[in-house]
Amino acid sequence: MKVYLAGPDVFLPDAVEVGQRKAAICARHGLTGLYPLDNAVDLAANDASRVIYAANEAMMIASDAIVANLTPFRGASADAGTVFELGFMAGRGKLCLGYSNNIWSYTERVRRREPVKAVNDGRLIDAEGFWVEDFGLADNLMIVHGLDVHGCQLIAPRLPPLDPWHDLTAFEACVRLAAERLAPPPKPKPRPAMRAVRRR
Amino acid sequence: MKVYLAGPDVFLPDAVEVGQRKAAICARHGLTGLYPLDNAVDLAANDASRVIYAANEAMMIASDAIVANLTPFRGASADAGTVFELGFMAGRGKLCLGYSNNIWSYTERVRRREPVKAVNDGRLIDAEGFWVEDFGLADNLMIVHGLDVHGCQLIAPRLPPLDPWHDLTAFEACVRLAAERLAPPPKPKPRPAMRAVRRR
Repeated sequence: MKVYLAGPDVFLPDAVEVGQRKAAICARHGLTGLYPLDNAVDLAANDASRVIYAANEAMMIASDAIVANLTPFRGASADAGTVFELGFMAGRGKLCLGYSNNIWSYTERVRRREPVKAVNDGRLIDAEGFWVEDFGLADNLMIVHGLDVHGCQLIAPRLPPLDPWHDLTAFEACVRLAAERLAPPPKPKPRPAMRAVRRR
Repeated sequence: MKVYLAGPDVFLPDAVEVGQRKAAICARHGLTGLYPLDNAVDLAANDASRVIYAANEAMMIASDAIVANLTPFRGASADAGTVFELGFMAGRGKLCLGYSNNIWSYTERVRRREPVKAVNDGRLIDAEGFWVEDFGLADNLMIVHGLDVHGCQLIAPRLPPLDPWHDLTAFEACVRLAAERLAPPPKPKPRPAMRAVRRR
């Protein structure tokens, strides 16, 4: 069974090594991890971004599940490319699993980045006047409940990992779940009545 | 034909009015615009966020196309919920259209928010050492090429609109395209040879 390994990990300085570690964890659980090809393409080529898109979409279509790293990236929410891929797999009815190595709620992260205030009806609004979702969720409700409906609740550690971009504990928990859910059903035992009986 | 109207517009103070304006534009083009229900749900209810998710997913499944407002929201990228929805519709093979009322590239927006520098291999990296995609695209390549493959190139104005959250020019361009693409094929003309000829 194949699992698409989505996440902003592809933007890390050691992206290739992280991908190899993730693929090795998948292999230990009997799965094949497919890692996005952003780093295996000639970035100077004119059509580099199209080639990456086509390769990633083909890998998603070939996969039975997605494990998405939804740790917030360059803002209060998960990486936009990863979120597109999670939506894509949910839309195709594939098994969707995700983790975040950030322990705070979306609301809390917005609050730490900009002034947020409560208005008359109890809603929170940001500096520009936009409503700030305040459901105590780890990210935008479409992401969090997309996981609930199409796979399993978002997995996050209780305490912030020392190195959120290299700690793969929550990732491995997702892979373990994927292996359980994707395992082929056990073969039916042969019925005793059908056993050959030697005649005397 | 139904069109799902995705975007962070649901977080605007005048979200309901913006939704009504968008639906009216759809109606003028012969389409039914379905606007997310974030604002039609009792937010104090325990399961409010789940109810919103379920309603939005059902509307997406019922729709023939999505028109996504991908104007950057609380960061350098589009709103995470909107991006999930775009991916969901692409995964289902629906017609995907999107617009942004921001005229800058993703790279330029990241550069304006934090220090970015070029490293030896020519790649740009941000303050945390993450690679910054530098393809001259309006957002993450999965979003931009997701539109190319599943609908049409992202639509954006040449000059920044005076009010990017209320200017619906680019939105209407998407709706026009959706109407053209979703229009039923013209009925074949009756063949002249089949025309009844009155006998004398």
